[in-house]
Amino acid sequence: MSNRVIARRRILRVTGGSARPSSDQLVAEEPMEVRVNGDAVAVTMRTPGNDFELALGFCLTEGIVDAAGDVATIRYCAGEPGPYTGDFNVVEVALRSAAPVPADLRRHVYTSSSCGICGTASIAAVRKDTGAVGDDGVRVSASTLAALPDRLRAAQRVFDRTGGLHAAGLFTSDGELVCLREDVGRHNAVDKLVGWAAMSERLPLSGHLLLVSGRVAFEIAQKALVAGVPVLAAVSAPSSLAVDLAGEAGMTLAGFVRGTTMNVYTGAERLTGLTRVR
Amino acid sequence: MSNRVIARRRILRVTGGSARPSSDQLVAEEPMEVRVNGDAVAVTMRTPGNDFELALGFCLTEGIVDAAGDVATIRYCAGEPGPYTGDFNVVEVALRSAAPVPADLRRHVYTSSSCGICGTASIAAVRKDTGAVGDDGVRVSASTLAALPDRLRAAQRVFDRTGGLHAAGLFTSDGELVCLREDVGRHNAVDKLVGWAAMSERLPLSGHLLLVSGRVAFEIAQKALVAGVPVLAAVSAPSSLAVDLAGEAGMTLAGFVRGTTMNVYTGAERLTGLTRVR
Repeated sequence: MSNRVIARRRILRVTGGSARPSSDQLVAEEPMEVRVNGDAVAVTMRTPGNDFELALGFCLTEGIVDAAGDVATIRYCAGEPGPYTGDFNVVEVALRSAAPVPADLRRHVYTSSSCGICGTASIAAVRKDTGAVGDDGVRVSASTLAALPDRLRAAQRVFDRTGGLHAAGLFTSDGELVCLREDVGRHNAVDKLVGWAAMSERLPLSGHLLLVSGRVAFEIAQKALVAGVPVLAAVSAPSSLAVDLAGEAGMTLAGFVRGTTMNVYTGAERLTGLTRVR
Repeated sequence: MSNRVIARRRILRVTGGSARPSSDQLVAEEPMEVRVNGDAVAVTMRTPGNDFELALGFCLTEGIVDAAGDVATIRYCAGEPGPYTGDFNVVEVALRSAAPVPADLRRHVYTSSSCGICGTASIAAVRKDTGAVGDDGVRVSASTLAALPDRLRAAQRVFDRTGGLHAAGLFTSDGELVCLREDVGRHNAVDKLVGWAAMSERLPLSGHLLLVSGRVAFEIAQKALVAGVPVLAAVSAPSSLAVDLAGEAGMTLAGFVRGTTMNVYTGAERLTGLTRVR
């Protein structure tokens, strides 16, 4: 498999009234079908790369498999005819149990590059299944948390070239970067990261901080919750439902995290180094 | 129905080492179920408001109904018991024909706030169904196109308060704003706009420009194509698949549109007022 993260296209670069032929590096977006024991469970629009992590993370955060140990092998279905271009756009997840995937999870749905909860049976089920983050006693310095976006950007290899990639970064409570994943879809970046953690036998992610490069809608908070992340931070705004889910689950959620400022929506008790003013 | 676009939450506002209790205005995100002739076809995470436009636009851009004229009524299923909070989160679309929705469209899928093509049977089907934008002869001044983001932001009523809303703006070829829609999900903003156009009997949107506030992934280009938009512009980056689809369909696609500069990926022949330099 060649490097398919970047796609180059010929463009016209316009500055004022001048147009100059040029070329631009775009973030690649290709469909990837995930099969579990032979049944298609989803097609996600993703940036190629870390595909097995994405498949495993998707299956875990969508509740299709309960634990990484349930998975026997993950492989590409190379050379199979189908509607997808290329040999590396169908990933087969074989479980240790040969049981077919329950019918209500065999949805054959498409998830766009920004879609995270398409396989989920209902909002109520998501909330019931994911439960709460246990209080693992983790405490985080507010200044450490506020500095994470700079560390994430410094570590991003692709973003500066395309301007089109979302990033998810996993950090220790001391602010050390543990893992970085990027994708055209924010939820895919999180799934790749969770898949990496599962392969590394690091789940649940107690004691860790998860930073996402953009906004936090419901599905990002839900995926973080399934992975057991106690502290979720975002460079931009959360939605009301993400805040409500984090609050119910006992998760710390910070938004607009930028250098020295942030908004803390839930779980402020995990933050240290702050003087409360009125 | 009260104003549910903004949700207020208590937060801790952190500046350096100081934390001040405050409140923040968040973009509201609530699930909305779309039923067609009684069958649930999707649940989308959306910002409440313009719900009937959203339902109609979704049904059109996802190919569930072929034309707005196929729809008899759209109404809320108020008071029904279900997993969704509130009386205004289930919308029933009744068709003039009582025929049930084909089984392959009754997917009962969830679409997150950023998900656009979950109801689609395959990438190949999307491309086949949508065809190409006819050459309607529309020409656009490059300076007009470059100025659209400033006009969109000036017209956005909610964005400045929450920082969490995507916008889709429909403009004439002279750069006059025709319609603006906002949502926590970029694809929902486009669907609301397409639904509005359908209700106004303006489809297809020949001669119009569509500007989206963020990035353009595949599903946004696909929705614009279904609506017949010849010129699609974005404040941020397109994905490779969006560029490829626009190119195949004869659509003009511009990205990084910012004041006086932009990148034109496809369909540059529709732009006027440019001097080509080497």
